[in-house]
Amino acid sequence: MVVPSHPHPADGPVRAGIPEHGRIPRYYAVKVRLLELIGELGEGATLPTERELSERYDVSRASIRQAVSELVLEGKLRRRQGSGTFVAPPKLVQRLSLGSYTESLRQEGLEPARTLITLEHRPADPGLAGELQLVPGEDVIHLERVLLADGERIGLESTYLVSSRFPALMDVFDPEESLYACLRDQLGVVFEGAEERVETVLATPREALLIGTNPALPMLLVHRVSWEPGGKPFERVRSLFRGDRLSFSTRL
Amino acid sequence: MVVPSHPHPADGPVRAGIPEHGRIPRYYAVKVRLLELIGELGEGATLPTERELSERYDVSRASIRQAVSELVLEGKLRRRQGSGTFVAPPKLVQRLSLGSYTESLRQEGLEPARTLITLEHRPADPGLAGELQLVPGEDVIHLERVLLADGERIGLESTYLVSSRFPALMDVFDPEESLYACLRDQLGVVFEGAEERVETVLATPREALLIGTNPALPMLLVHRVSWEPGGKPFERVRSLFRGDRLSFSTRL
Repeated sequence: MVVPSHPHPADGPVRAGIPEHGRIPRYYAVKVRLLELIGELGEGATLPTERELSERYDVSRASIRQAVSELVLEGKLRRRQGSGTFVAPPKLVQRLSLGSYTESLRQEGLEPARTLITLEHRPADPGLAGELQLVPGEDVIHLERVLLADGERIGLESTYLVSSRFPALMDVFDPEESLYACLRDQLGVVFEGAEERVETVLATPREALLIGTNPALPMLLVHRVSWEPGGKPFERVRSLFRGDRLSFSTRL
Repeated sequence: MVVPSHPHPADGPVRAGIPEHGRIPRYYAVKVRLLELIGELGEGATLPTERELSERYDVSRASIRQAVSELVLEGKLRRRQGSGTFVAPPKLVQRLSLGSYTESLRQEGLEPARTLITLEHRPADPGLAGELQLVPGEDVIHLERVLLADGERIGLESTYLVSSRFPALMDVFDPEESLYACLRDQLGVVFEGAEERVETVLATPREALLIGTNPALPMLLVHRVSWEPGGKPFERVRSLFRGDRLSFSTRL
């Protein structure tokens, strides 16, 4: 088998992970070496200090700092107050499914929890009303919770539910427990389908504060509208997750 | 219906999009006003200059600059060489499906194209061999292409194919056309299923150079392994997309 002689930019200015024009940023060369070191050290190990790394690789502490802070943003390293920087565990994988956050996390062997931030009635604005097939101004229940995995804050979930569909919700729902389990097991909701959209965004200052993260950290935002048999939507969800802690998977 | 008297942090320090402790970052207040302005101006409109905005909102040009650069990173605004900053169109929505990039883009009314970067044979390393159920060292075809939408670079796709499965690939495949169309229509491949994972990452300098973007820009990375009936994997794909231009959707 012969590789055809197409014009072949790979013979040109870029190849093998770094530009070939000779201007490999110094911090990036350090980052590549730190990635190797991370592999050798293994999960949970403490990274040598900035000063030690700067001596070991013979580069400025500024280059070390930039490389480390990118690796922190990407979730390869984590900082722990007062105990330096250590090698992070792999990102959690959450399955895009009709199941709940709770089920998905338990499958990963982690304990889910939620902290209530907002629980209120409010009139649907025109955009929300359109998505939920309501008349603008119709009442919705707004539930906002910080999501935790093994005690660590990893996301913020904002759910709007059609009030008229769930008049008994408040009598049976504990906002620190799984909403989906309550809807399904206590209110008899059948999850027929959902439309989801995933994108990357920056957190607002409020969101960063609630999740306890740096506003520069890329986040994964999931929009979801779910419906019952017959196609009637009953919820709109906007879930924001730490991009350094989580990935999403799906089987097609 | 009565909202129960749960402890209610929403009455506390945060609410309505910004912290309530009085320390709303100035640039963020500007960003909120710019978002309104963007809505009023509409897609394609030119943003007033930094100087005009600084006078209009009575804040420093540094605050304007930070707000604008976050809005650029998020894909709400775009910079055009020599012609200022303008309101960006909405992000493209690509469906997570067994279909190809080509089909997904055409459904959005855009013209897909690809630029060949790498096309070569190489031995599979242990990780790749594991994913493709090969013996380490077995030959794979590596195809790397920049993906374009209406002439604009939006991603970089790196595909590894099992060579022994596709001995005739090079005779029939034009690397600037759709790979999936070729596999399906000319080589009779049936796409039985795929496992996909989506996460947010930073581009490497090489990737940023190839896609023509800023390395600080959050990217969406999609890993995919696809298999034929019987469960035999035939490709592993790593696609990197501009986070400011693209989102992914799926129906569950």
